[in-house]
Amino acid sequence: MIIAMKPGTAGTEVQEFISLLEKQGVRVHFSQGITQTVLGLVGDTTAIDAEALMAHHLVEKVIRVQEPYKRANRLFHPDDTRIDITGPDGEMRSIGAGRLGTIAGPCSVETREQIIEVAREVKKAGAAFLRGGAFKPRTSPYSFQGLGSEGLDLLLEAKKATGLPIVTELMDISHLEAFAEVDIIQIGARNMQNFTLLKELGRCNKPILLKRGYACTITEVLMAAEYVLAGGNDKIILCERGIRSFDTYTRNVLDLSAIPALKKQSHLPVIVDPSHATGISWMVSAMAKAAVAAGADGLIIEVHNNPEKALCDGEQSITPEAFAALMATLRKYADIEGKRI
Amino acid sequence: MIIAMKPGTAGTEVQEFISLLEKQGVRVHFSQGITQTVLGLVGDTTAIDAEALMAHHLVEKVIRVQEPYKRANRLFHPDDTRIDITGPDGEMRSIGAGRLGTIAGPCSVETREQIIEVAREVKKAGAAFLRGGAFKPRTSPYSFQGLGSEGLDLLLEAKKATGLPIVTELMDISHLEAFAEVDIIQIGARNMQNFTLLKELGRCNKPILLKRGYACTITEVLMAAEYVLAGGNDKIILCERGIRSFDTYTRNVLDLSAIPALKKQSHLPVIVDPSHATGISWMVSAMAKAAVAAGADGLIIEVHNNPEKALCDGEQSITPEAFAALMATLRKYADIEGKRI
Amino acid sequence: MIIAMKPGTAGTEVQEFISLLEKQGVRVHFSQGITQTVLGLVGDTTAIDAEALMAHHLVEKVIRVQEPYKRANRLFHPDDTRIDITGPDGEMRSIGAGRLGTIAGPCSVETREQIIEVAREVKKAGAAFLRGGAFKPRTSPYSFQGLGSEGLDLLLEAKKATGLPIVTELMDISHLEAFAEVDIIQIGARNMQNFTLLKELGRCNKPILLKRGYACTITEVLMAAEYVLAGGNDKIILCERGIRSFDTYTRNVLDLSAIPALKKQSHLPVIVDPSHATGISWMVSAMAKAAVAAGADGLIIEVHNNPEKALCDGEQSITPEAFAALMATLRKYADIEGKRI
Amino acid sequence: MIIAMKPGTAGTEVQEFISLLEKQGVRVHFSQGITQTVLGLVGDTTAIDAEALMAHHLVEKVIRVQEPYKRANRLFHPDDTRIDITGPDGEMRSIGAGRLGTIAGPCSVETREQIIEVAREVKKAGAAFLRGGAFKPRTSPYSFQGLGSEGLDLLLEAKKATGLPIVTELMDISHLEAFAEVDIIQIGARNMQNFTLLKELGRCNKPILLKRGYACTITEVLMAAEYVLAGGNDKIILCERGIRSFDTYTRNVLDLSAIPALKKQSHLPVIVDPSHATGISWMVSAMAKAAVAAGADGLIIEVHNNPEKALCDGEQSITPEAFAALMATLRKYADIEGKRI
Repeated sequence: MIIAMKPGTAGTEVQEFISLLEKQGVRVHFSQGITQTVLGLVGDTTAIDAEALMAHHLVEKVIRVQEPYKRANRLFHPDDTRIDITGPDGEMRSIGAGRLGTIAGPCSVETREQIIEVAREVKKAGAAFLRGGAFKPRTSPYSFQGLGSEGLDLLLEAKKATGLPIVTELMDISHLEAFAEVDIIQIGARNMQNFTLLKELGRCNKPILLKRGYACTITEVLMAAEYVLAGGNDKIILCERGIRSFDTYTRNVLDLSAIPALKKQSHLPVIVDPSHATGISWMVSAMAKAAVAAGADGLIIEVHNNPEKALCDGEQSITPEAFAALMATLRKYADIEGKRI
Repeated sequence: MIIAMKPGTAGTEVQEFISLLEKQGVRVHFSQGITQTVLGLVGDTTAIDAEALMAHHLVEKVIRVQEPYKRANRLFHPDDTRIDITGPDGEMRSIGAGRLGTIAGPCSVETREQIIEVAREVKKAGAAFLRGGAFKPRTSPYSFQGLGSEGLDLLLEAKKATGLPIVTELMDISHLEAFAEVDIIQIGARNMQNFTLLKELGRCNKPILLKRGYACTITEVLMAAEYVLAGGNDKIILCERGIRSFDTYTRNVLDLSAIPALKKQSHLPVIVDPSHATGISWMVSAMAKAAVAAGADGLIIEVHNNPEKALCDGEQSITPEAFAALMATLRKYADIEGKRI
Repeated sequence: MIIAMKPGTAGTEVQEFISLLEKQGVRVHFSQGITQTVLGLVGDTTAIDAEALMAHHLVEKVIRVQEPYKRANRLFHPDDTRIDITGPDGEMRSIGAGRLGTIAGPCSVETREQIIEVAREVKKAGAAFLRGGAFKPRTSPYSFQGLGSEGLDLLLEAKKATGLPIVTELMDISHLEAFAEVDIIQIGARNMQNFTLLKELGRCNKPILLKRGYACTITEVLMAAEYVLAGGNDKIILCERGIRSFDTYTRNVLDLSAIPALKKQSHLPVIVDPSHATGISWMVSAMAKAAVAAGADGLIIEVHNNPEKALCDGEQSITPEAFAALMATLRKYADIEGKRI
Repeated sequence: MIIAMKPGTAGTEVQEFISLLEKQGVRVHFSQGITQTVLGLVGDTTAIDAEALMAHHLVEKVIRVQEPYKRANRLFHPDDTRIDITGPDGEMRSIGAGRLGTIAGPCSVETREQIIEVAREVKKAGAAFLRGGAFKPRTSPYSFQGLGSEGLDLLLEAKKATGLPIVTELMDISHLEAFAEVDIIQIGARNMQNFTLLKELGRCNKPILLKRGYACTITEVLMAAEYVLAGGNDKIILCERGIRSFDTYTRNVLDLSAIPALKKQSHLPVIVDPSHATGISWMVSAMAKAAVAAGADGLIIEVHNNPEKALCDGEQSITPEAFAALMATLRKYADIEGKRI
């Protein structure tokens, strides 16, 4: 961290300020220019509050050179993290470090027939995980809120029936106990900065699929992951799912440059959700392919056997047939990129 | 709600689609143009899922004419809502319907001396409520997270010492019991779409200060309020606190047009937080005055007796002296606008 | 400017890099920390290209401490700039340095009767300048593009008839000759970064009303002004007119914090256009008052004697009666702020 | 276009309003619901000003069903447009309709040696066109503004030396004559809504590379193209080059969903500029591959033989070696997508 002092700050004031900083556990390197004094902080500055320093009347600017995240930082953990999960069929599925893992399934679990049929179809097409929402975050209190624990039970039946590990969204920590058989816990975009929830997830031992908040920066995504990591849970999968912009053609703007950015800064695997990002079923395949080309470690795709009758988000679901065709193309892309599906 | 069917849709298909809609409790008015069939939905369409309709293969466009919120809608509740709170000193303070209520205090409760001194100062200057954070949402797990329940106790001491009702942030529903003596529960921007939390707040009987999420639309703010209202709690104060943009001069962009927008659409009072919006102490007064000029029903302002030593967000706090000067000017503005401080 | 070198850079490499920098006319202050070398550039760094430096393989980070604009910078020109214009009636109108100047008139000049009637009405209500579009930038080539030079002639007639100086938009430098009698040349938001045009305006001797581009930062606004100033024209009025965001309730988000920001950084006067920013006539008064409360030096407001029949942007025009009522309130606000209308 | 009238509008008022609309050359289909009257406009509504209608006191909402662009609309021109250009070497290069055309070269033309060397390198690697800036739009008036007409001459030398057709940016219509030997005229993002310039380009007979403004919607891009098309020039290549967002990790956010969006709405070819979008050289390859996977018809990539000494934008240029490696991978991607490089 570099601190530029206001021009004209007296030497004694600078000395007092340096003492203040050193009490926070860093060494301070002092550099006196002709018009400006610049301080360089050496040591672990992750706990130093840059915004608080900005309030000091002697400070002109504060610049972080080091990133504020530590456990999520590739600098201290150069190798890619890989998440391995073994399904009830005994087969291990992986995401990250050269393995491309695909998660597919309906937005919401609706009926036993629906979820089991979709599960069978996506498994046949090559999906590694089954997704399905039981507890649904909806912008309107009057919209369908998911089947809740009944939905969770149906999802577990589909897991047993197909052997696929399952992924589903946790909206509140009070539901955690009911998630004992869930393989990957999804945290939705609107909860990415629910810090109380993140702290609790740090104490659990399950892989967390952490979706990027729709107006969160790359640094904020990694700080959210850092909350979980700081608690002791290092099984985190990051997920880009679109950010807000001024354009309304797509629901959100899928930020595929987030893939190389997150992977440069961190060792954690990064997957992409083209379905929620675009909100448009005919765009899903193009964006899924682009995600793999940009270096994604996996995809999460909405597949519904009857999109028109879906109880939520039908306009972004693709059919099992479209999904199978997409998987065939993705295999070719993965080959070029040297990844295994 | 108006639905434009795809050109060339057969009459029988339209009839089937109409039946489907009528099963959802609305009447459908049919209009056959030369190239296009348009359906008008009559009745309560708040429970109709426009996005789900968009997935139907016969549908070209869906347009909401009616707003998706009902209890928050001024259409069904033309009079302004006023929130009245009586402090331990027996005096009633109000926000809304011609009453301008000011909330002031430090970002975080730090020590007994600090919170009581600030409380006395802001009361003397004319603040109606004391604010102070006990549980703090911080982007870094390594930053100061607030004093927690100890901070809450100190805040209650300041309440007793000054007679001012208090406002503090609730981060998780599990803390609700500890908030029994809190007068207004603040929900932070990052929790504005924490739907599980909103549902619980609908069942509690305390005024809720609901901060706008930093990338949430006017409609989404009102839908979040609708979650609380739908649960039976109609004591809601909305708060504009800045939205994200491409510019980084200020922390966020304070969207003052949200005040007339929210007040046009809803009967709920709207206050403004110029401190968090700008993140810059020398901008707070200008933005506070502008908020009152734009029609705000109140303000929430960070005041610290020693901003440079504040444990968080010091760079946006103003001193008690600056706050007193601001209040004097705001009284003149309130007079012109016909409002009582 | 501060440059942090990559960790591990050899001393000889740093020396070569320093020589390279010194050839660009700055002195370099060298500071060797334990893990990092930091260089401080002393002198005029406005011509140093920070982005080009970033490409150098030895450079970790480049941080501007000094702003990249010079003539627009308040640091080198502490006193407020005031723009004075005398109308054909011999009366001087001013914008800036304690003087609040209001510009009013229709979006487009439509007929002789229309522009003269509106001009009379706004003058009576206290406007200092008449606005009216002759050349109109429209997003569709099929929309009304303004009356062109005929519109300019009608505007000049209205100037003569009322004594009001006039403001109108220049879309291309080839029209400049025809603007000889125009008092203030408006540059629209979409042309704010038309650098060829800005250079030409630097060579003309007329006041320029420079509208903020709808996705331009505070720094970019001042760099656009710097282009004009660098050419020798220092009569510039900056104008905030709304920025793009994710919300579509208003056409743009009026960023009123741009007023204190621009005035802190620069000596140039700042006015506000609440009509284009919101695009909604019933919001104009609230936002105009808020602009004055936030420190604006003037306003530009669309007034039309028959908004419903306006050939463009009628939905954001207010009537002459509404404008007169607004001016009466603005006088009270200006009094409090110590400004003269 | 569908117009919802305000509830309670009298029948006679509706009739008058309909007459008003029919004078604008459309037929109006009337539909009387129980609470609301809805009008459907039949015919060519591209010239109808939806914003002007919104100002009418009887109008509740206006909804465009038909897009406001006509010549750019795929609806009226189902087949892909292909741009064919023959270089001085007699070879034809194409963009669009199954042909993937790559444009490569330095940000700025700097010296004869530089541009000819880069031209030879990119040709060898398989580029179809040479790019190089002569007139440069720079945010600072103190930055290098390009070599101007001298730069243009050097570019023409490189064209002759290699046989490659050339692409360079036009900043002002007054330079058009000097562009006689330029093969594709580039219009920069900041000029995308310079309507005067667009009209002039409609009268010229050269292919136009139209870059998306950094805060422009899909519809606005197509309306800008419509300006050129309306003038009679149908040789337009659209270019996605990143949009502004709240995140500053990359210079802009590359919006790859704009590719399927623009190609769904329009027959015009769409290419991508990963260099300017990201501003980071190590991201260029990943984003270039993703663009092709998403369906792009071409790429424009900055290649410099000595990025560290580039006079502008060096931090986003890749070396000729990196470009050659990228082209090799792109060929495999193009094969899968059934496109010819």
